[in-house]
Amino acid sequence: MAQIIDGKKISSEIKEEIKSVCSQLVKEKKQLPGLVTILVGNNPASKAYVNSKAKSCNEVGMVSKIEILDESISEEELISLINRFNNDKNYHGILVQLPLPKYINESNVIKSIIPEKDVDGFHPINVGKLVIGEETLIPCTPYGILELLKRYNIETKGKHVVVVGRSNIVGKPIANLLLQKRDGANAVVTIVHSAAKNISFYTKQADILIAAIGSPKFIKAEMLKENVVVIDVGINRVEDANSPKGYKIIGDVDFDEVSKIASFITPVPGGVGPMTIAMLLKNTLIAYKHLTKNIE
Amino acid sequence: MAQIIDGKKISSEIKEEIKSVCSQLVKEKKQLPGLVTILVGNNPASKAYVNSKAKSCNEVGMVSKIEILDESISEEELISLINRFNNDKNYHGILVQLPLPKYINESNVIKSIIPEKDVDGFHPINVGKLVIGEETLIPCTPYGILELLKRYNIETKGKHVVVVGRSNIVGKPIANLLLQKRDGANAVVTIVHSAAKNISFYTKQADILIAAIGSPKFIKAEMLKENVVVIDVGINRVEDANSPKGYKIIGDVDFDEVSKIASFITPVPGGVGPMTIAMLLKNTLIAYKHLTKNIE
Repeated sequence: MAQIIDGKKISSEIKEEIKSVCSQLVKEKKQLPGLVTILVGNNPASKAYVNSKAKSCNEVGMVSKIEILDESISEEELISLINRFNNDKNYHGILVQLPLPKYINESNVIKSIIPEKDVDGFHPINVGKLVIGEETLIPCTPYGILELLKRYNIETKGKHVVVVGRSNIVGKPIANLLLQKRDGANAVVTIVHSAAKNISFYTKQADILIAAIGSPKFIKAEMLKENVVVIDVGINRVEDANSPKGYKIIGDVDFDEVSKIASFITPVPGGVGPMTIAMLLKNTLIAYKHLTKNIE
Repeated sequence: MAQIIDGKKISSEIKEEIKSVCSQLVKEKKQLPGLVTILVGNNPASKAYVNSKAKSCNEVGMVSKIEILDESISEEELISLINRFNNDKNYHGILVQLPLPKYINESNVIKSIIPEKDVDGFHPINVGKLVIGEETLIPCTPYGILELLKRYNIETKGKHVVVVGRSNIVGKPIANLLLQKRDGANAVVTIVHSAAKNISFYTKQADILIAAIGSPKFIKAEMLKENVVVIDVGINRVEDANSPKGYKIIGDVDFDEVSKIASFITPVPGGVGPMTIAMLLKNTLIAYKHLTKNIE
């Protein structure tokens, strides 16, 4: 049976580390790191994400603010609000909850956040720096995966990492991170996706499999080799009559089957998910350190 | 025997296409596209490259200027010269010949070129846009590879592309380009490099192999499968007593062996090399079109 990679535990550790930094700042009577989250409209799932981010900020002792905007807001108005926070020294991280309403151009909005406060790591200049190998704000989910691998001492050097999925949020950045020539990376990386004729041909080769497809239980045991390390990024909501909510969250990996042959596996929930928020806090702290060094 | 992918021929075709656009601009009494190339110091190889770029500009009817700076110039002075060209409406492309002297920070210099004139496509914001899948100035060598594949009608969708080498100039951008979900791409991509335990294990899987290692004749026939498409990016200078220059240029692929089993192959010289300059001209034209629409 695979060892469970406990994302809940690791994320708590990271939050504790951040909390102790914030306590020290309070003792020194210094400014605290601040994160503003901007939500357009009132999609319940987005609202829940935003609230949970704010709650985590408060838990570690950061300043947090939620700006909820009416769905009818124009792109211009949204960007002008972002500009206000670009110039607001109380906030070091700006996060715009995606998706945005269709008539707003997401790319324009992302580019309007100054790269130094782009704690989601989605600004093209930050993506470019990540690829080139420069220091930057790393998107939270890939950053969380790197931390899980590191804190479980999983060797990546020379290993074959197979990434299933090529999204801008997970697949592309984690692939580009893991192929860099540095500790905690240095892997041979394959990116496979829906255009492949035979996905199993690739997944069977994986020493480390990263599933970021958005398709429940897509990855089966027969698609993998023994002792593979499995990182499941999927968060799929499926009906479940036994749950009081009427649904449950499952991953892209068939956990019951795959956990029997893998050496390590992340569960869903409790694997990559909690890491994403922990790394958002970490990014806000990094942005704070970087900005206050320059500003103060 | 493999069909030769004739980069010299294709690059001539592209230059002819650009030339006819420039002739039309002359007829319409419009401004011409302009490229400035900046060279620091007097490395003979760099000088030869710069001259050949300027010559190609002239051939197609573009404006070209070479700025040669003394090796003793400071980073600040170089960046201030770049700023002058950032604001000079006569030049739409700015290229700084690399490598720069060691005391000058290349990354700072590259970032000082406005992204709209970054015809090398090395600015992190342009790298980021390439990865995200937005329109941008694509680095010349990877852009040339895309054009060769396209003009020889080589299918990439669902194919396994194996890129050997992970440089910022070739390996990383061509990998990120070929995995995009669009025509002329949509491939499964593996990036393999020096940290791999067994490079052949990966290269043997390639439907399309891209060698960008910088090691003469590194890729042998036994490392490949039959009917592979081989793109050789290597430009290695090796001693050759029979040549009047005392050296010859060879690729990363053992052409004599590999051409016997491949379906298509680029020769060195005459493959990817000539495409790089052609795509530089193309990028200058793209930058010109983009800038003049905004400026005029």
